[in-house]
Amino acid sequence: MAPLTRIGLAGLAVMGQNLALNIAEKGFPISVYNRTTLKVDETVERAKQEGDLPLYGFHDPESFVKSIQKPRVIIILVKAGAPVDQTIKTLSVYMEKGDCIIDGGNEWYENTERREKALAELGLLYLGMGVSGGEDGARHGPSLMPGGSGNFVKMVHNGIEYGDMQLIAEAYDVLKSVGKLTNEELCQVFSEWNKGELLSFLIEITADIFGVKDDKGEGYLVDKVLDKTGMKGTGKWTVQQAAELSVAAPTIASSLDGRFLSGLKEERVEAAKVFKSSGIRDMLADQVVDKEKLIHDVRQALYASKICSYAQGMNLIRAKSAEKGWDLKLGQLTRIWKGGCIIRAVFLDRIKKAYDRNPNLPNLLVDPEFAKEIIERQSAWRRVVSIAINSGISTPGMSSSLAYFDTYRRSKLPANLVQAQRDYFGAHTYERIDIDGSFHTEWFKIAKQSKI
Amino acid sequence: MAPLTRIGLAGLAVMGQNLALNIAEKGFPISVYNRTTLKVDETVERAKQEGDLPLYGFHDPESFVKSIQKPRVIIILVKAGAPVDQTIKTLSVYMEKGDCIIDGGNEWYENTERREKALAELGLLYLGMGVSGGEDGARHGPSLMPGGSGNFVKMVHNGIEYGDMQLIAEAYDVLKSVGKLTNEELCQVFSEWNKGELLSFLIEITADIFGVKDDKGEGYLVDKVLDKTGMKGTGKWTVQQAAELSVAAPTIASSLDGRFLSGLKEERVEAAKVFKSSGIRDMLADQVVDKEKLIHDVRQALYASKICSYAQGMNLIRAKSAEKGWDLKLGQLTRIWKGGCIIRAVFLDRIKKAYDRNPNLPNLLVDPEFAKEIIERQSAWRRVVSIAINSGISTPGMSSSLAYFDTYRRSKLPANLVQAQRDYFGAHTYERIDIDGSFHTEWFKIAKQSKI
Repeated sequence: MAPLTRIGLAGLAVMGQNLALNIAEKGFPISVYNRTTLKVDETVERAKQEGDLPLYGFHDPESFVKSIQKPRVIIILVKAGAPVDQTIKTLSVYMEKGDCIIDGGNEWYENTERREKALAELGLLYLGMGVSGGEDGARHGPSLMPGGSGNFVKMVHNGIEYGDMQLIAEAYDVLKSVGKLTNEELCQVFSEWNKGELLSFLIEITADIFGVKDDKGEGYLVDKVLDKTGMKGTGKWTVQQAAELSVAAPTIASSLDGRFLSGLKEERVEAAKVFKSSGIRDMLADQVVDKEKLIHDVRQALYASKICSYAQGMNLIRAKSAEKGWDLKLGQLTRIWKGGCIIRAVFLDRIKKAYDRNPNLPNLLVDPEFAKEIIERQSAWRRVVSIAINSGISTPGMSSSLAYFDTYRRSKLPANLVQAQRDYFGAHTYERIDIDGSFHTEWFKIAKQSKI
Repeated sequence: MAPLTRIGLAGLAVMGQNLALNIAEKGFPISVYNRTTLKVDETVERAKQEGDLPLYGFHDPESFVKSIQKPRVIIILVKAGAPVDQTIKTLSVYMEKGDCIIDGGNEWYENTERREKALAELGLLYLGMGVSGGEDGARHGPSLMPGGSGNFVKMVHNGIEYGDMQLIAEAYDVLKSVGKLTNEELCQVFSEWNKGELLSFLIEITADIFGVKDDKGEGYLVDKVLDKTGMKGTGKWTVQQAAELSVAAPTIASSLDGRFLSGLKEERVEAAKVFKSSGIRDMLADQVVDKEKLIHDVRQALYASKICSYAQGMNLIRAKSAEKGWDLKLGQLTRIWKGGCIIRAVFLDRIKKAYDRNPNLPNLLVDPEFAKEIIERQSAWRRVVSIAINSGISTPGMSSSLAYFDTYRRSKLPANLVQAQRDYFGAHTYERIDIDGSFHTEWFKIAKQSKI
């Protein structure tokens, strides 16, 4: 009889397959299982080729479960929702009291809480664990977010990832459309940016992308990729949770909208025709710009916007942690994101330091170091957004970040008018700046009298 | 024995009380009930004073229900959620097969669907009906949105209302902060605007508000109102539903964020101090502007932004209607909003006409008339947002509307880069502009090779 393995993994799509190989490579014998057995054989074959790694494939759930040493730990990496329930059902009949299932998928955290309770009644342990890093991260070292809050933290991580990607796309758009940078120049610019404060996985791969030639035709591959972006749900949940928790997250929301609107390719092509026929071209005017200054400015705008985006994400996690009593340490969280995951960046050290300086920091924007960085960048940031607006280029991420900053840093907003309107038509009452209490005014009657 | 009344109404807060008086005044004898009996007596007293209206108060649910002619119709106007369930429980025990309850509150539509099913099992009818118009609307003629979709349509109506109020507040902010307009001038400007394309209830009451003097001190009341805005849930639901249905609704979302950030008054005061100490004042610079031109431009920006906001709201309703098979006619809906409700405006006629011209219009922006109106306004719109950005004033509603327009009208977005990134790190594949199919590239390997 074969010796028992140390751990099991079910669900052998891109992430599962690579994570299993990674675990095996680190010296932990692993059992793997997948509903479609072809994937099992494929993984076993890869394990062989990559150096006879201690990975054992099983075609049926019973022998899979029974091949693991007790108490058993099984990571599942299948699509969120019903497939997770199905996998749990399939495996749990063979599992015993004290065994544990870890969901490494992008699951909605309330589903995880529900399953945790249901499995506890069978004596089984259940855990949500966010896994980030993509294919390469899973293979060589992903970022793991385990615990009762794991799925939620991973969800916000993905929301932040959406924001980063949107902001980078806008930087690309401005540099390409206004600055007329070629792909070679873009590759150089992003490579250069990746040496400084923007150093991160996403900036690095962006530089790489601009360097890839099309293998099916002339020119560069990026220009042949259709401008339609897919998504899988975590960004949507992040935006919905922000609304639920009364946390403003406009940068992340704009990146989600960006994906929705990118999907309406056919509608956009038609809309472009409607407006082009009236003289509104893609670019409103060919502005003469100083290329070097533009590159410099866009770099500043990207970084300042990024601070706003992370401020929103961190506040979202804090709000949820307070609601659920998770007692999450925001500074520690950013350490988990430092290695392996898609948003890994030198920038995360700065966030950690900000929370080290003040664990109760209400917003990253008012940390002395971040405030200083924003102040240094705000003129360039405003120039970039203005140039984009006057060129007819949309920079929803950068402009909503700037609006977020300019709203948060103003002691007085025009919300007094909104509250006056609410009191006018709905008798919702208002507070005053000078006297404590709650007031209601018969605005209509007074306005009518003064007109007579 | 007293003759039976025609209808009943339970829940006598501001909206309920006024709607009951309105119904009584129109000649329909009405029974009213409230859990707190004081409200019943108050309503009965008002009915007496307003001309012996046929309104009858009841202190207990049984005599209330039994005072209504069969089949009974009872409108309930209580707080959404648990209070609705409680009210239904209290009343339904005395109701009989064929009787009907109409929920006129701002209820989450799925709760209404749930109750509809539950009451059907008892032989009772149940209906959600959105009611808009505030205190005055309820008393003299509200906008009613009945039917299976009533609560949902009312929810989006409120989201649009949030957007309108945010945009008006931004117009006020720019005119006041940059243009240095006094309250007298603002009153004049909004009165003037209320004669043209912006003619609407909200513009009208805004003009009124600027004319109201403070009765507790010097100056105008609007300046004494605290800049903190309350909310009750419908705006939040609208934003969450937009995300759920993959509909971009940035203008509405920015108005919700505006309310969230307005609530952080103490944080904002502290943030202002942090940035002021580094030279970033509330206003970055006192720009010399042509006042008349600014007023003109802001009017154009407000109107163009409003088109975007309504485009988002209408698309949200259409997406839900398609999902649920409600077969809603968007043009007809705007007719319901024409009278009584908070967003009533001459503008709604234009929307109706747009859908009359083309019931399958994908977006209001590409209706020929709206497109023309936007084209006429786009330069002014860009000027206003640019001025705001350079003054350090946030106009999140106007700028996100502009970004929405500039995204929707562009046939080519930088989403190709985002999709390339997704394929790079997650093997999510991409489409090409020139060849059908789904492609995956080993970006990392190719980029690495080309570097060697």
